[in-house]
This record gives sequence, C-alpha cells and structure tokens, in this order.
Amino acid sequence: MAKDALSELVTLLARWPGIGERTATRLAYHVLTSEPGEAHALAQAFATLHARIRRCERCANFDEAPLCRICSDTRREGALLCVVARVQELNAIEKTGGYRGRYHVLHGLVSPLDGTSAESLGLDAIADRVTREGVTEVIVATPLSVEGEATALYVREVVKALGVKVTRIASGVPHGGELEYTDRVTLGRAFDGRTPLD
Amino acid sequence: MAKDALSELVTLLARWPGIGERTATRLAYHVLTSEPGEAHALAQAFATLHARIRRCERCANFDEAPLCRICSDTRREGALLCVVARVQELNAIEKTGGYRGRYHVLHGLVSPLDGTSAESLGLDAIADRVTREGVTEVIVATPLSVEGEATALYVREVVKALGVKVTRIASGVPHGGELEYTDRVTLGRAFDGRTPLD
Repeated sequence: MAKDALSELVTLLARWPGIGERTATRLAYHVLTSEPGEAHALAQAFATLHARIRRCERCANFDEAPLCRICSDTRREGALLCVVARVQELNAIEKTGGYRGRYHVLHGLVSPLDGTSAESLGLDAIADRVTREGVTEVIVATPLSVEGEATALYVREVVKALGVKVTRIASGVPHGGELEYTDRVTLGRAFDGRTPLD
Repeated sequence: MAKDALSELVTLLARWPGIGERTATRLAYHVLTSEPGEAHALAQAFATLHARIRRCERCANFDEAPLCRICSDTRREGALLCVVARVQELNAIEKTGGYRGRYHVLHGLVSPLDGTSAESLGLDAIADRVTREGVTEVIVATPLSVEGEATALYVREVVKALGVKVTRIASGVPHGGELEYTDRVTLGRAFDGRTPLD
C-alpha cells in the first residue's frame, strides 16, 4: 500500500485530463516496477520542462528558442496571420501543410465565467503585429464553440479598427460526414457558408 | 513545436501502458500549460519514488518502512500465506476485506519466454517463511493465466515438500456472470470446481 510517496504520485497523475484515480494508480505502479532510470528520466523531464520551453516572444508558440521555428522562418508569408487559442491547434493546422503564413497563440479564449477578458488574452499584441509586420489578412481559427466565437468577434473588432481584412475558418459538414447524422447547427452553418460551384 | 524538451517528455509518457503518442502529447501540453508548480511536484514525486518506496524485507510488498504495514500488523494471521504476482493484486485482495493472513509478492510469474525462472522469482523465500513463521496454509492467488497457473505449480512443489497445505483460489463464473456468455474454459473450470450445496 505504501501510503505516502505512491499516493502522492497517484494524486498528481489523477489531476491530468482523462486520467482517473484507477488509471493513475496503474501508471504509478508501472513506473514503480520499471527500472529506476525511467522514473529519473521523467523527474528530469518535468523538472526542466518550463525552464526549457518558453513562449515565443512574438507569437507565443512554444519553443526552446526566444523566437520560434515558424517566426524565425523567413520563407513564411508575413502578410498572413492566423490566430489560434492553443499551440495544439497551431500544430494541427501545420499538419495540413496548406498554410504558409504565421500564427498568434492566445493561450486561452475570452470567457467571462472563468474571468478571462479580451485584455488578459493580450489581443492588443495582434494589433501591434498587424501594424509592424505588414499583415494584410488575419485568419481567426479559434474553436467553433461559444467561447471561440466570442473571441473571434473580439479579434475582429481589434483588426477591423486597423482597416485590415479579417476572416474566420469555415464551419460546415466535416469531410466524409453524413448529412443525415450531422447536427442542426452544423448543417445550418454549412448552408449559411455555401460557396458558388463555378 | 518546441522539438526537444517536449518530445522527450512525450516519448517517456508514450512508454506507459495504455498511453499512445496522441494521449502523451495531450498530457505533456497539459503539464506545460499548467502552473510550473505542478511540473515541479511531478518531478519531485518521480525523483524520490524509488528511494522512498522499497520492497518489504519479508513479503516484498511496497512500503516506505523496511517491514510493510501488513507484516508489522500483529493482528494478521501468520498461519496463512497468500502468494501473489504483483502488489496490485495484493491491494485488490485487501479491498475484499475477507482475508486476514499475510502475503508474499513474487513481482512476476514464471515465464520461460521472458527468461523468468522459478529461481529468479525467489520461490525459496516462500519455503523459508513457511518454516520460520509457522505457516499452515499457502494460498496461491497468481492470475488464472497460463503463466499464473505454471507459477502456481512451482509454488505447490516448494510448499508440498515441506508437508504444508497449499491451495489455489477458485476459478469459475464471475459474480453476476451469464452462463450463456461465459467462455468454455471458465465454464469448464466452474464445473470442475463445483462444491456441495449442503
């Protein structure tokens, strides 16, 4: 049972999203019964994580360098700026291989309930970048949720005030999706966002 | 993308059972976007895990003390010794609340394919304990798998040589189990292990 050290670890792991106490216990025992080197590698990785990975000073993407891989890549189109809520979403967009512009990571969404205001997300930084980097289009790729949509409206206000084009990623039926099983809101959006079949 | 530190952590987490690279990435980002204190607590927990938790010098159960909670509890029946493969199984038996004897944890099973022999599991230690602690019954609670059954046979040999009673936990239809959907082996065992309805 080994009350303390083991249950301390279980408590920490059970705080992770999607990890219940049962899974946390299983994982803790796994580490305990593995080679001690494994636990030490994990200790080292967690100890140095925040010191080694910081937010890019321009776009807030995670990187070990002060300026991230994308911001320091001169081949990226500086005229396009894509606003995302999280680095995970930036990575998902990068995987499509179709976007060649730069990003701005908010690390959150406007949420009055959580006390996250437009100011605390630093939307002013977007306006600064638009002016300084000669951005001609800001693409808002925040989630298609209530908070994601609210944040998109705030970004629109900031960018429109500068007279620069601001767009929102399309919402509609996903690739391979059956219309019959698509929810009403999505299907309604697919109709509202219809494009000419020329 | 923050190649190094983050992907190092993802690699370590993806080695855990049931955690794929996708989940490992999600968890690593979770820790990265949480308070740094969280990562430091994890680092501390992993760094000290093996130093703080050791195997009980008598039964090999995990504990912070040299003699585990169960071995040092004088109210436990020293005449009963239950042999288990892993500490997780000891904990499961403890939760039933019905067993009042002591345990012996093998930390493995006899497995010729993995190169785990009866000697490397330290089955001799069971014989020593039977003699020294006046054990009158050894209950073999290894899994009902091929390796668990093979290990049970080795334990039987060791204990029988001392002229002491050795039993195996029952195998049969689980509580609430439907006979219709029970596999053939289990149902066969349930018949073989039938007990008088007196």
